[in-house]
Amino acid sequence: MLVAKHQNTIDNAVKANHERTFYAHYPEHPKAYGDEAHAIGMQSYQQMLNKPFKQLLQTGETGWTGEEVSPYSGEVLGVTYPEFAVKDLIEKATEAGKSWAKVPAAERAAALAETLDRIKDHFFDIANATMHTTGQSYMMSFQASGPHANDRALEAIAAGYHELTRYPENLLWEKPMGKVSVKLSKSFRAIPKGIGVVIGCSTFPVWNSLPGMYADLITGNPVIVKPHPRAILPIAIAVSCIQQALQDNGYNPDICQLAPDSTEHLITKELCEDPAVKLIDYTGGSAFGEYVESLKGKTAFTEKAGVNSIILDSVKDLDAVIQNLAFSISLYSGQMCTAPQNFFIPEHGIQTSNGLVSFNDVVQKFKEAVEALVNNPKMGAGTLGAVQNEQTLQRAKDAQMLGGKVVLAGQTINNEEFSKARMFTPTILEVTSADNKIYEQELFGPIVLIVKTKDTQHSVQLAKQMALKHGAITCGAYTTDPAVKAEITEEMNSVFTPVSFNLTGFIWVNQHAAFSDFHVTGGNPAGNASFTNQEFILKRFVWVGNRELAE
Amino acid sequence: MLVAKHQNTIDNAVKANHERTFYAHYPEHPKAYGDEAHAIGMQSYQQMLNKPFKQLLQTGETGWTGEEVSPYSGEVLGVTYPEFAVKDLIEKATEAGKSWAKVPAAERAAALAETLDRIKDHFFDIANATMHTTGQSYMMSFQASGPHANDRALEAIAAGYHELTRYPENLLWEKPMGKVSVKLSKSFRAIPKGIGVVIGCSTFPVWNSLPGMYADLITGNPVIVKPHPRAILPIAIAVSCIQQALQDNGYNPDICQLAPDSTEHLITKELCEDPAVKLIDYTGGSAFGEYVESLKGKTAFTEKAGVNSIILDSVKDLDAVIQNLAFSISLYSGQMCTAPQNFFIPEHGIQTSNGLVSFNDVVQKFKEAVEALVNNPKMGAGTLGAVQNEQTLQRAKDAQMLGGKVVLAGQTINNEEFSKARMFTPTILEVTSADNKIYEQELFGPIVLIVKTKDTQHSVQLAKQMALKHGAITCGAYTTDPAVKAEITEEMNSVFTPVSFNLTGFIWVNQHAAFSDFHVTGGNPAGNASFTNQEFILKRFVWVGNRELAE
Repeated sequence: MLVAKHQNTIDNAVKANHERTFYAHYPEHPKAYGDEAHAIGMQSYQQMLNKPFKQLLQTGETGWTGEEVSPYSGEVLGVTYPEFAVKDLIEKATEAGKSWAKVPAAERAAALAETLDRIKDHFFDIANATMHTTGQSYMMSFQASGPHANDRALEAIAAGYHELTRYPENLLWEKPMGKVSVKLSKSFRAIPKGIGVVIGCSTFPVWNSLPGMYADLITGNPVIVKPHPRAILPIAIAVSCIQQALQDNGYNPDICQLAPDSTEHLITKELCEDPAVKLIDYTGGSAFGEYVESLKGKTAFTEKAGVNSIILDSVKDLDAVIQNLAFSISLYSGQMCTAPQNFFIPEHGIQTSNGLVSFNDVVQKFKEAVEALVNNPKMGAGTLGAVQNEQTLQRAKDAQMLGGKVVLAGQTINNEEFSKARMFTPTILEVTSADNKIYEQELFGPIVLIVKTKDTQHSVQLAKQMALKHGAITCGAYTTDPAVKAEITEEMNSVFTPVSFNLTGFIWVNQHAAFSDFHVTGGNPAGNASFTNQEFILKRFVWVGNRELAE
Repeated sequence: MLVAKHQNTIDNAVKANHERTFYAHYPEHPKAYGDEAHAIGMQSYQQMLNKPFKQLLQTGETGWTGEEVSPYSGEVLGVTYPEFAVKDLIEKATEAGKSWAKVPAAERAAALAETLDRIKDHFFDIANATMHTTGQSYMMSFQASGPHANDRALEAIAAGYHELTRYPENLLWEKPMGKVSVKLSKSFRAIPKGIGVVIGCSTFPVWNSLPGMYADLITGNPVIVKPHPRAILPIAIAVSCIQQALQDNGYNPDICQLAPDSTEHLITKELCEDPAVKLIDYTGGSAFGEYVESLKGKTAFTEKAGVNSIILDSVKDLDAVIQNLAFSISLYSGQMCTAPQNFFIPEHGIQTSNGLVSFNDVVQKFKEAVEALVNNPKMGAGTLGAVQNEQTLQRAKDAQMLGGKVVLAGQTINNEEFSKARMFTPTILEVTSADNKIYEQELFGPIVLIVKTKDTQHSVQLAKQMALKHGAITCGAYTTDPAVKAEITEEMNSVFTPVSFNLTGFIWVNQHAAFSDFHVTGGNPAGNASFTNQEFILKRFVWVGNRELAE
């Protein structure tokens, strides 16, 4: 029944995965969900505060934990979550996995599509929960944790369905041997690898978790979701929707369990090192990411730190470019893994349609554009969002002491709606190409470095070195010269970094669209996995072919 | 031009890869290649003996090496091969790789198909070279190093071509934004990972090397082929064919280099550890395989040791089964990675259409069948082939001292054609299930263990444990009971081991057919790679998507 309901959705998503033109199953505009949705979601969110989260279909908790604080209000959310013994989680996952592994691919895909529709009904409470844990603006919270995350999940389901149905399940192999032939009945089975663990981060608790969760599930593996202790609520709502939809349709909800823990007693390593855990998806800092990648007998999918570059060579309309970049660095205060950090600008300046603009003038324009944006009462607070945690805030405050010339000093600004919001505007530093100690590190948060280079070739070489040594998820470049464009493409692609050229207007380098853009290439130190290429799916199961003499 | 010539071949191979029914592009019967081919090949082989091998298009050798000895004649082949400095090989691969990476997928596939046709013209000299380095019989040498290897190479080319052409190269992405839309030109590029090294083995120097070589090449990577010092000639001929065909069609032959070395001065580790080497394909012992897998920053594809089991439960025609198994263990004296080693038989015997046959009677029949086969003047020598090296011979000779009861003692037998052939017939030992120290090891060569178990369930548990702990490439099972069949399938598949049921007649568990059977699943310790699943291809390149604002 679910197959009939969702097969079109799956088929369209498979097609979209291959065509890679614009496609969205879940509209990104809040209005598409009805006039009441916003208010209902807000109410629903508020009703969750200051009480135990009991919507999960998991039992046997050993205690309750919760330490979330809103970056907007500075207040604790007061939601507590059940804690479970790792052994208990593993046992339940193992048991639930047995029957899930036997569900045919089409049924599995349909059941998972149904869970996404259930999540859709809670997009607005998830948006509020995301806002008040991550510090994202309301609109970003809605889109990133709602339609965009669901679309990336559907993308993973479709990619999995495509791979699982690539070969015929049963076939007759007949080898002619002169007058006779040898006949074998063959059957191909996609055997799931084992329990998956998905480790969430505090800035994109849903968007970064759903792809791995659904990739595990579509390929028949049970999954345990280990959220960041400071950003549990958004994914807890999503997991409770998944569990409810599974149970309502006759599946064991334990194939998707939540494993909340606390900063004081983290269970991540205990989970990862359990012998039954075979798959680990991780988003976060590089040190823990490298630990995950080093675990023997596990398949790891990581998104770690990186240093994203912007290469400025020549432009048509400098103001349009500067506007676009000012927005890019301000968006969510640089707390996106796709946010640009290092801006490479030649010392002789930038060629524009109106002639050469000097290096200093470009820097000045950039400074002014950022100032104008963050101080714009209609734009500033909504673009910046809030800073997720104190560490990031401190890093931003300390940025002026990194060295180089302070072009723009970050500062606390007021948020009219939330007077206690943890806000800090971007700091812009100007450094020389010799200051690699400064720009060779990920400065997560609202910190931008302008690196003065000899020329564009020099800029490209530095950006390439950064990607090779420290990883890069994306790169923005501006040039009107086809030869320069070809060179930038060649050089950055050679270190497995995608380039976005000449973005202006309502599209930013930070954005990666489901069904079209691979998020992280997997080829440089920024991460070994990619949303959602085939490897992201195929590494989660093993093809096994059985044969029998056919008579 | 080459695309027009070979596109049908590629398209048919892509189709065959997906349908997985019987398909062969290169006929396996020698007669298909004309009446003269055998004699020409023999002559061609003989003309290569006792001189330097100068057919490679590589220059700058630092010396000449060669230490091959025929397992049939006991004589040195006397062929010497050029040795190259690792630095030189890497530099040439890097340089040649630059232009090869830019060749479009369809052209690359066609050029590689052309190289296979060039190899085809040398199937018969390769057959002789294989026979006199590996000890395989002439027929196995012809098939395994000729048509079967070429088909597995074509399979890899087709799988690569399919993946490389999965997404449109260029497309327009248009996102509706109310009254306007945002347009991006996107292009997807498959960026090769870097230099590949393919490490050959002494028993299947061509069959085990071609898939990795062609998987590297189709995905745009240059490859360096490091053969086993005792089995260079077969793959040297193949590489020289590839180089010649490449050069004739305007490609740099250095994209496929041979790197011969000597037992005294192995260059394998130096090659593997070079920073420019990103891909390593390896066939051989587990210790070195684990070293290869542990190398940081490399993608490894391994086929290591394993312990293959036969589970005997119930049969229709016991004699037919025993005949089939006797042939399986005798074929190339157990020197195939797919050869069965451990035979699990319940202590109460085996149910047959003619009633229960006791354990001892089954063992006796097995013994008699092997004796009859190896002593059959028309069958014995041709089935057994020769033992490749002294270590394997010694292991076979020492087998009686392993413990257990000697059912059949292996012995030297005469080969009428080659009086000095290194021959040794299979040793059969009977052990108990408690003798796990004996049967828990790969006893490469003509050694078979019959393990007496409590019942079939016990047999299955032991076979499963062997696969889980030590790896298994295949498993044979005999049962007439559908419930038992289901249980064996479930249990062995859960440790990523394929099962072949009830094989009798002209099909053996040892055989894996191109375009249909995945060779090694990659899921247990027998190896982490599979000929040719999609992972075997996808891990060799990275998708990078570039974007540009479209106006």
